[in-house]
Amino acid sequence: MHTLDELVQHFLRFPGIGPRQARRFAMHLLTEDESANESLANLIRSLKTTVRPCVHCGRYVSYRTREDLCSICTDTHRDQSTLMVVERDTDVTAIERARTYRGKYFVFGGTVPLLADENAGKKVRASALKALLAQNLETVHEIILAFSANPDGDNTARYIETLLKEFQEQNPELTLTHLGRGLSTGSELEYADPDTISFALQNRK
Amino acid sequence: MHTLDELVQHFLRFPGIGPRQARRFAMHLLTEDESANESLANLIRSLKTTVRPCVHCGRYVSYRTREDLCSICTDTHRDQSTLMVVERDTDVTAIERARTYRGKYFVFGGTVPLLADENAGKKVRASALKALLAQNLETVHEIILAFSANPDGDNTARYIETLLKEFQEQNPELTLTHLGRGLSTGSELEYADPDTISFALQNRK
Amino acid sequence: MHTLDELVQHFLRFPGIGPRQARRFAMHLLTEDESANESLANLIRSLKTTVRPCVHCGRYVSYRTREDLCSICTDTHRDQSTLMVVERDTDVTAIERARTYRGKYFVFGGTVPLLADENAGKKVRASALKALLAQNLETVHEIILAFSANPDGDNTARYIETLLKEFQEQNPELTLTHLGRGLSTGSELEYADPDTISFALQNRK
Amino acid sequence: MHTLDELVQHFLRFPGIGPRQARRFAMHLLTEDESANESLANLIRSLKTTVRPCVHCGRYVSYRTREDLCSICTDTHRDQSTLMVVERDTDVTAIERARTYRGKYFVFGGTVPLLADENAGKKVRASALKALLAQNLETVHEIILAFSANPDGDNTARYIETLLKEFQEQNPELTLTHLGRGLSTGSELEYADPDTISFALQNRK
Repeated sequence: MHTLDELVQHFLRFPGIGPRQARRFAMHLLTEDESANESLANLIRSLKTTVRPCVHCGRYVSYRTREDLCSICTDTHRDQSTLMVVERDTDVTAIERARTYRGKYFVFGGTVPLLADENAGKKVRASALKALLAQNLETVHEIILAFSANPDGDNTARYIETLLKEFQEQNPELTLTHLGRGLSTGSELEYADPDTISFALQNRK
Repeated sequence: MHTLDELVQHFLRFPGIGPRQARRFAMHLLTEDESANESLANLIRSLKTTVRPCVHCGRYVSYRTREDLCSICTDTHRDQSTLMVVERDTDVTAIERARTYRGKYFVFGGTVPLLADENAGKKVRASALKALLAQNLETVHEIILAFSANPDGDNTARYIETLLKEFQEQNPELTLTHLGRGLSTGSELEYADPDTISFALQNRK
Repeated sequence: MHTLDELVQHFLRFPGIGPRQARRFAMHLLTEDESANESLANLIRSLKTTVRPCVHCGRYVSYRTREDLCSICTDTHRDQSTLMVVERDTDVTAIERARTYRGKYFVFGGTVPLLADENAGKKVRASALKALLAQNLETVHEIILAFSANPDGDNTARYIETLLKEFQEQNPELTLTHLGRGLSTGSELEYADPDTISFALQNRK
Repeated sequence: MHTLDELVQHFLRFPGIGPRQARRFAMHLLTEDESANESLANLIRSLKTTVRPCVHCGRYVSYRTREDLCSICTDTHRDQSTLMVVERDTDVTAIERARTYRGKYFVFGGTVPLLADENAGKKVRASALKALLAQNLETVHEIILAFSANPDGDNTARYIETLLKEFQEQNPELTLTHLGRGLSTGSELEYADPDTISFALQNRK
């Protein structure tokens, strides 16, 4: 295989990219300066050594403190008693954009799909979550399971509930909550699906 | 204007129908049997005399009891203490499809948009709502304001709250509720807007 | 079945209309004046007696001459030697909009699909086309087969070529032509399919 | 700016990629093996030295002959008398996919838009085209201008016609042709725009 094809193969692995776009990316790089490509190549080469996960929450950040913590985990003004478990980094971005949540985060690193096998726990940061809780058992009072409102998200929440049963037995004050379901902003009642309507009725106030 | 054009003009008034589709509908009727068109013509001619609104909830139904009530309003098994106010008939259909709500309905007949003038109340069934409540003041304990999650829906809910203040003063047990907001079924957290996320956080359990 | 449902059933037969839109149309008519509905009902009832096909080209027109001809067929300024056969009325509209063609038309009334049976000729105006040609054998020199660029359109063109073989034998000057294929306006070469490209190459000038 | 942001900035320059996808690409690379990223980085670094344009047609190819020619330009079985000028490499791919054209190519490297200034010729391979023709004046008999069917494509064709006027004067047998316009495969006559219809009528046979 030749260089152009090899490069296209790499781009085909990018999320959401098909053959036509992969080829476009390769052609695009052919029109860029050599210095721009050199710069991009260096960023890609050094990415995994320069961008490391925060040892508490798991978010990938370019800059960490001496203790290898990210800016949110080091922020003493955040509410230490609430921990929100999300699937990935971009979920943290979405929550932060709402400017409402003042607690801490934990990036689970993936979901536990409905048809998961017994190795499911290794593909996500299950052990790291237990370790973090073990260290903070007195501080954390609420764990918000903030996964997407779909079967895999629901199953992941159930998985974590089972995972953390022992912690709840050790600390009866520890509650696990789920983000509320209901009508999303802008939605018309006429087009809402039965499940959303059921939740919206339950959550009425 | 000729017949074909006049017919197209009528179809242009149908919701969501543009010139191309309006013309298509006319051409379609030219390919139908004369008896099918006769039947359609009769249904349209007699529509407003045959399909009358239920005198309580306002839904358009083909069949009403002797008291001019629809099947839901006559159903004694429904919860008489809860009244859900919706914008239009199709909202009732959506709620019923969820098979969760067992109370009664009131079709408001429209919304009160943000830029409404003082005649806004006449374009919706404001007086009929007050009259219905006046007749059922002891029975009704909860009024669920079930409008779409957008500015006009929110404003309509506010309008009704003001409208029904006097009833709440007369009957302190009467509560007004709103359908819960939050993540709709199938939505991914990553793409949820800040408002929806804020509501989902508030409604967590 | 009740009136509202019967009406919805009729609207479900309209081209491209599903259950939700059919119901919307019915609700829309409930909000219209009784006089508007009366007017629509009358137009639909009298449609097939008022809007008759032109006896030459078959187009549905509201106004015909005493000889039951449409305005295009009566227009002596049109080129009598060229006859364009199209699938339906709306194709005539599309061709006329280009303001280029000065000949006459014949609406075939449908296509002859690839999997058509021996009754295919009865579902389209095959006999009427032969009759029209028989009457105008000296006048018509070119018949343009103007069908859509898809398998059914191609098959219909082939069907007509076979149908009119005898006329070509009687009149060697009679030619049958097809609309040219190639790049359509606005299309980018990069996305053109192989067939279109082959035709575009053949038709280059 | 930190590494992750710098990398996202590079991806933002990729054609058709917005902030969300750019960030996704960066996160994707964080989940890849270091060896995969090393490989990608090397391919990007060496791209412009490894993938060079063919000195005749200008296509970017990984493998060139000793004379720096691509496989099409070296192929003696191709028709040396026909040269097709296209906008970019991907157009060659589209034409080759049709398996119809047996001539040679020239990649113009861009278009000459309607509002181009006098430097327009430098942004495309105008000089290279003239040089190639000068070398092959007896061999080339037809130049097919194969640009997209839009205003910029049309203008580019006109620009090249002017550019090559002198060659046509030197060699009266040299003809310039354009790809045929008309109905593209699968299109329905009813929806064809007036220009396409006009061309289809002109190109009928």
